[in-house]
Amino acid sequence: MIIPHLQEIKSALNQSPNLLLFCHVDPDGDALGSLLGLGLALKDHGWQVQLISPDGVPANYQFLPGTEYVTTSFTTEGQATAIILDCGDLDRLGTITDKVSSLHSIINIDHHSTNTKFGAINWVEPKASATAEMIFFLLKKLAIPLTVKTATCLYTGIHTDTGGFRYENTTARVHQVAEQLLKIGVKPWKIADEIYDRKSVTQLQLLQKALQRLSVSTDGQIAWISLPYDIVQYYTDEDLSGIINYPRMVASAEVAVLLTESVDGHVRVGLRSRQSVNVGLLAMRLGGGGHPRAAGCILSGTLAHAEKEVLEAVQQALQEAHNRG
Amino acid sequence: MIIPHLQEIKSALNQSPNLLLFCHVDPDGDALGSLLGLGLALKDHGWQVQLISPDGVPANYQFLPGTEYVTTSFTTEGQATAIILDCGDLDRLGTITDKVSSLHSIINIDHHSTNTKFGAINWVEPKASATAEMIFFLLKKLAIPLTVKTATCLYTGIHTDTGGFRYENTTARVHQVAEQLLKIGVKPWKIADEIYDRKSVTQLQLLQKALQRLSVSTDGQIAWISLPYDIVQYYTDEDLSGIINYPRMVASAEVAVLLTESVDGHVRVGLRSRQSVNVGLLAMRLGGGGHPRAAGCILSGTLAHAEKEVLEAVQQALQEAHNRG
Repeated sequence: MIIPHLQEIKSALNQSPNLLLFCHVDPDGDALGSLLGLGLALKDHGWQVQLISPDGVPANYQFLPGTEYVTTSFTTEGQATAIILDCGDLDRLGTITDKVSSLHSIINIDHHSTNTKFGAINWVEPKASATAEMIFFLLKKLAIPLTVKTATCLYTGIHTDTGGFRYENTTARVHQVAEQLLKIGVKPWKIADEIYDRKSVTQLQLLQKALQRLSVSTDGQIAWISLPYDIVQYYTDEDLSGIINYPRMVASAEVAVLLTESVDGHVRVGLRSRQSVNVGLLAMRLGGGGHPRAAGCILSGTLAHAEKEVLEAVQQALQEAHNRG
Repeated sequence: MIIPHLQEIKSALNQSPNLLLFCHVDPDGDALGSLLGLGLALKDHGWQVQLISPDGVPANYQFLPGTEYVTTSFTTEGQATAIILDCGDLDRLGTITDKVSSLHSIINIDHHSTNTKFGAINWVEPKASATAEMIFFLLKKLAIPLTVKTATCLYTGIHTDTGGFRYENTTARVHQVAEQLLKIGVKPWKIADEIYDRKSVTQLQLLQKALQRLSVSTDGQIAWISLPYDIVQYYTDEDLSGIINYPRMVASAEVAVLLTESVDGHVRVGLRSRQSVNVGLLAMRLGGGGHPRAAGCILSGTLAHAEKEVLEAVQQALQEAHNRG
């Protein structure tokens, strides 16, 4: 991987003994893996680092090395440089956005094609599977050797952002990086067990209730689950996060939908598609947004009303996709 | 990978224009991926091949290239050489075992450490993640280039036998092989979608019923599901095959159990463990067998009786593991 701004990044790092590293709100494996992978590596090599995750570290990532250093806010004494990881725009830092944007110097490292180039240095690499993959090559170029700890963090970022080497961003290079991380001593089975294979009984009970509500359209092309507030109220967002995968598994379904009702008369809608429907565009029509295969929106009104509205919109999108051939 | 019997395999192949390739009954991704990967490659290079899968090709592997050539039985005209893939012993060929064992010459290619070396040539490589990984290196040594089709078959074998690069057999070399297969043009997201992400509504309904029956011991260490015959009767073995993963997901559980009742007063027991209990030994005590992390047995009697017997045995094994420290 070529790093176009390598010299600038090197000088910025060499001139800044104090570094503030940030990842985005609602952090995933890549956000935390990049934060900790780069953070621990720089810390081991003499930098003073603060590692800031505005929303902290969710339970399933607590196993990552270095989480004890992660804070949700930061102090700015002296001339600190900020490194912002895996954020498409500065708003992804949540309530600390304003405070971060006033910092002396910002290095923006990200793999989202929609990145707004908000930094003084912007290294944006949409062809990277994960920000953690970029950090792997950066540390190599900085001649900072990886330890089992830093390799574990970077592997976690790559593993989660490629869906376990399964999404379309899984390139030959991703496997080459994984090979090198395993040579350092990463134990993929331990990481996968921590991230995916541990659910609470509560989460499995929610899954049971959700599957009871699985519906499939008569032509089989839409599979959906609608969860009323009287169920949702007992569960956290983390509990609810994997449920959409189940309508998505229905073999005949091109589009999968999850509708969850909030207390305040709002319905959150998650959308997934297999191949022909761009659910990003579909979600935009409904006032939301996202990617071609994964998107979402929030509708107001009753669950029944939202269900009707979304299913009609999906039907129409399927028809349009069909007409396009 | 060093192939100790390379010269013997080469001469056997060169002396045998007619080849019979076999995989085991109840074929998984590695059995079929190896059969088709090697079979198509040899066929493309002038050999006459018969590809025999005694149990045919299950629905979720029908996408593999070359399944149209797979038969469940074979004819032996002339001096044919048999290549037996991914079989720990000859009995793994089911009802055709006797017919196969009388063949002129047998090449045994397998990665199971328990392989009984039943062939004239035995290439057994327990350090390989999958038989498909061995085939990858064999084709390389035979200077037979891989096509997208053969690479797709071999990738499928490696992907399934490593649980999607997650089991303990996932070595750095596995990723190196995956890198090379992706360079040939394998699309991992398409393969994963075919293998894992397509379930029938029936299968999801079974999952719902199974989750309704999820139990966890008071100390959280055992999670189990018991399915009575009045449920099981409506489902196939394929429908039932993934259910054990759900008690296994319970975060606190060291041992997961699935009990399914047959019509004839037998109960099939599947056992999984996370770390400290060797369920292979546990299953042996109950008259079955398997691996340290995945094993099974069949008990006679009622479901309630089997559940009691198994849970007591698991409790004892947990106690022993605890005493060992």
